[in-house]
Amino acid sequence: MAARRHTSAMAARGRFITLEGGEGAGKSTQARRLAAALAGAGLPVLRTREPGGTPGAERIRDLLLGHGPWDPVAEAMLHFAARREHLVRVIRPFLDAGGWVVCDRFADSTLAYQGAQGLPREVWARLAALSLEGLSPDLTLVLDLPVEAGMARVGNRGGARPGTSRADPAETFDRYEGMGRRFHEAVREAFRAIAAAEPARCAVVDASAPVEEVAAAIGQAVRERLGVRL
Amino acid sequence: MAARRHTSAMAARGRFITLEGGEGAGKSTQARRLAAALAGAGLPVLRTREPGGTPGAERIRDLLLGHGPWDPVAEAMLHFAARREHLVRVIRPFLDAGGWVVCDRFADSTLAYQGAQGLPREVWARLAALSLEGLSPDLTLVLDLPVEAGMARVGNRGGARPGTSRADPAETFDRYEGMGRRFHEAVREAFRAIAAAEPARCAVVDASAPVEEVAAAIGQAVRERLGVRL
Repeated sequence: MAARRHTSAMAARGRFITLEGGEGAGKSTQARRLAAALAGAGLPVLRTREPGGTPGAERIRDLLLGHGPWDPVAEAMLHFAARREHLVRVIRPFLDAGGWVVCDRFADSTLAYQGAQGLPREVWARLAALSLEGLSPDLTLVLDLPVEAGMARVGNRGGARPGTSRADPAETFDRYEGMGRRFHEAVREAFRAIAAAEPARCAVVDASAPVEEVAAAIGQAVRERLGVRL
Repeated sequence: MAARRHTSAMAARGRFITLEGGEGAGKSTQARRLAAALAGAGLPVLRTREPGGTPGAERIRDLLLGHGPWDPVAEAMLHFAARREHLVRVIRPFLDAGGWVVCDRFADSTLAYQGAQGLPREVWARLAALSLEGLSPDLTLVLDLPVEAGMARVGNRGGARPGTSRADPAETFDRYEGMGRRFHEAVREAFRAIAAAEPARCAVVDASAPVEEVAAAIGQAVRERLGVRL
């Protein structure tokens, strides 16, 4: 995909960029910055997030983050139901119109988070095959961070955090954030394993660096992998 | 299964009986009567319904009946997520303890209703395989009724209906009930096709008869198929 000439903002199909990683890795902040940079380069950009992204999927998000525990298979089905709505109603139409989609979490998060709760990879793969119709991100940015650093950032969300709007409901404390350290270590390892298994799609970014440096590393990855000038 | 000797109320595994059919077929009424008859025969009985049956699954039910439209694949995943919760937390433990479960709707309803909205049978089959772990009803009572008769009954739910408690939230008008006649004809045909394809599991009951006659026919089917004295 990186070799495709990028001659027009609305050429053929757009690009699908996902940000993945554990709690406190800065995905939301970096998704905002990346979307702004792409828009600044004249590209049509949609920034969105999962679970959610449509009214129906946001209702499913409320079930997932606010209620539970769910059986692992049921939980994965809820995630993929929300993802299917998001994909059919928002992501695919925007890509088909030539737009660029920047999505905070996608299918890798379900593999990492539900896998860490016991979901067999095979169940994840079958649900992905049923719902995604072959759609895969053109680039996945895996924001990697030691668990203790991420949890410390999440713990600070309740107070003042420079440069962050507390009005964003995506940044309230949720059920996954409240899980134990061993869980979050498994999630981190799962994301690193995904990146190692699919190096052509995934770029690992050191998310422990200052925000500006992380943004610069992301910009470099997007330039190199997708051939866009930022 | 019908040949298994039934020597004790809590012997080995219990029996799983589902009631299926279109709107206004009288499933809820008949499920209550059947559960009462089984309890009267000294059997441990759980009467439940789908979508729902657990706190989490009831929340998913609210999404399915009160919101939409959903993409057909997403909708089927929501139904199977609710079903998985119901199966893991309620149905299977009760069956394993030797109980009898009477369930108002199960997987056949997803095939009939979502199939009538365009869900491929293969997607239904894969979701069923992922979530049900081989569990299938011992007996499915398909309450069959001409669509106009069923719709007339549903239309009367808002008013006084003899012998019916209006306090039951299962009997309020929902999104599926509000779909058109062609949809409900397709649902009826789907249920009849399911029964024709699996005659060992399914018994078709004429639901246009008076309530007492339908109950008698159901009682006869349960006696003949499951060898219980009612």
